[in-house]
Amino acid sequence: MEIITAKNSGLCYGVKRALQMAKVTRRQKKGEVFTFGDLIHNPQVINELKKQGIQSIDGIEQIKEGTVIIRSHGVSPEIYAILNKKKLDIVDATCPIVKRIQKLVAALAKKENEVIIVGNREHPEIKGLIGYSRGKGIIIENETQAKSLPSRKRRAVLAQSTQDLFLFTRAVAALIEKTEELQVYNTICQSTQTRQKSTSELASCVDVLFIIGGRKSSNTQKLFQISKRILPNTHFIESAEQITPALVKGAKKIGLSGGASTPPEAIEEAVAKIKSSYKHNFLSEKRA
Amino acid sequence: MEIITAKNSGLCYGVKRALQMAKVTRRQKKGEVFTFGDLIHNPQVINELKKQGIQSIDGIEQIKEGTVIIRSHGVSPEIYAILNKKKLDIVDATCPIVKRIQKLVAALAKKENEVIIVGNREHPEIKGLIGYSRGKGIIIENETQAKSLPSRKRRAVLAQSTQDLFLFTRAVAALIEKTEELQVYNTICQSTQTRQKSTSELASCVDVLFIIGGRKSSNTQKLFQISKRILPNTHFIESAEQITPALVKGAKKIGLSGGASTPPEAIEEAVAKIKSSYKHNFLSEKRA
Repeated sequence: MEIITAKNSGLCYGVKRALQMAKVTRRQKKGEVFTFGDLIHNPQVINELKKQGIQSIDGIEQIKEGTVIIRSHGVSPEIYAILNKKKLDIVDATCPIVKRIQKLVAALAKKENEVIIVGNREHPEIKGLIGYSRGKGIIIENETQAKSLPSRKRRAVLAQSTQDLFLFTRAVAALIEKTEELQVYNTICQSTQTRQKSTSELASCVDVLFIIGGRKSSNTQKLFQISKRILPNTHFIESAEQITPALVKGAKKIGLSGGASTPPEAIEEAVAKIKSSYKHNFLSEKRA
Repeated sequence: MEIITAKNSGLCYGVKRALQMAKVTRRQKKGEVFTFGDLIHNPQVINELKKQGIQSIDGIEQIKEGTVIIRSHGVSPEIYAILNKKKLDIVDATCPIVKRIQKLVAALAKKENEVIIVGNREHPEIKGLIGYSRGKGIIIENETQAKSLPSRKRRAVLAQSTQDLFLFTRAVAALIEKTEELQVYNTICQSTQTRQKSTSELASCVDVLFIIGGRKSSNTQKLFQISKRILPNTHFIESAEQITPALVKGAKKIGLSGGASTPPEAIEEAVAKIKSSYKHNFLSEKRA
C-alpha cells in the first residue's frame, strides 16, 4: 500500500500571507482585532486565532472601533467605504492575485458593456469582484447559465481565482457561440491550476482519493468535483477521523489532496490515520 | 419511412454569389475567362461552366491575358499582386464574410504578436488568410496542436469561416490554459453554424443520415464528422447513385444534408433515389 499526496496540496500563498498578516497585526495593534469573515475554512485554525485575540465576524455593523483584517478573498469597494466611514483601522490581506482581478474587472467595466464572471455567486471573492464592475458584471456559475445568455457582438469573461479550469473552459465554449468577439482572461491562479492538475493526475493513478478540507471551501469542493469526474471512489473529508478502514479496503494506492485553505496538519493527520490502520502492510509514502 | 432534409443544406450565399458573378462575367467580358481553382466542389457544375467558356485553372503562371475570377474562398495579397503585375482583369468573388476575416487578420497582425487561425492548412481560404498576417499567423488544425503551443501572456484566435464550431471551441479551451488574455473571434459564418446545428439535430432523430457533397469540400467533411459523432450510421456520398437499398434497409427516418457547395440538384437526386427504392412504403418527405 502506498500513500501519495498531490503536489500543491494545502495552504496557498494568499492564505498563508493573510494568516501571517493577522498574527503580525495582533502583535502590533492595540485594541480589538477582527477578521471580516473566517480567514481560513478550518475551525481549529479559527479557534486558535480566537485564543490569540483575533475574532472572526460576519458583519461590520456591530463594530465601533478596532482593526479589521480583510481576508485573502478581498471585498467590494462598498465595504472599504463603510470601514473608512467608521474610521476603523484596515489591514488589507486581500490576496495580490485577487487584487489584480479586482483591478481587471474595474478596467474592463470602463470599456466593455458586459463583463462575465465565472464563479460561485455566494463566494466572498465573487461578492467582492462584482462590486468593481459598475453594474456591468454578470455572474455565471456554469455552462448552462452561459448558454442562457443572449448573443452579443462583444463581451469579456474572467474567472474566480480558484475556479475549476474545466468548468471555466466549458463556460467559455458556450459563450463563443453567442459572442462575435470574446475577451477571455484566464484569471485562475497558477497555484489553483497546478493543484487541480496534480489532483486530476493523481486521481487517474490511485484506487481511492481523499480530498481534505472545509466543506465551505469553494476551491476544495472543486478539487472534489475534478477528482470525482476521473475517479468515482473519491471522498471529501473534513478531518482524518472520517477515514475508515472500509473506505481504503483493498486499495493499493491511496491519494490525498487538500485545498488552498487546508493546513498541512490536516494532511499529516490523514497520512497518520491511514498508516495506523494499515501498520502491518504499509509500504511507502510519497509526495507526487 | 420519412425523408428529412436539414435546414441550410446546400449552396451558401458566398458560393451562389460567386457562381452568379462568373456567369455575368462570361456574358460581359471578351477574351478568356478563368476561375482560380474550382468555383465549387462539384464536377458536374465545373463541367457545365467549362462548356459556357469558364475554365478552372490551378495556377496563374500559364495565363497571359484574360479575366481571372477569384472564388469565394479568397486569395492572399501575393496573388493579387501577381495578377496585377500580369495586368489581368480581376473579378473578385471572394465571399464578403471571408473578406471581413481577411481584414480582421490584417488588423490583428498590426496589434498582436500572435494570431492563431483554426482551420485546414491546405484549404484555399486558410492559404489566403495567412497571407494577411504579416508572419504573425499560426495555423492549427485541432485541439492537440493548440496544446503543443507555448504559453503566452496575450494572443488572438479566429476560425476558418466553415470551421466545425465544436472543434473550434475545443481548440480555444486548450488555448485558455496557455494564455492569460485571449481574444477570441468567432468568425464561423452564420450559414455554417446553422447548417452544422440543423445537421446535428437531424442526426439525433433519424436512423441513417447521408451527407451529400464533394470529397474535397472541407465544410462537407466537417458536416460528416459532426453527424458521425452523434450517429455512427452516417454516410458521406458524392452522388445519389451511392445510396444503395442496403444502406437504408430498416430505416424509418432518413436524413439528408449537404455542404455549402452542394447544388440543390444533388439533394433532389438523392431524395428521388431513396423514393424510387422504396416506392411502396414511402410515406412523407419534409425539410427540417
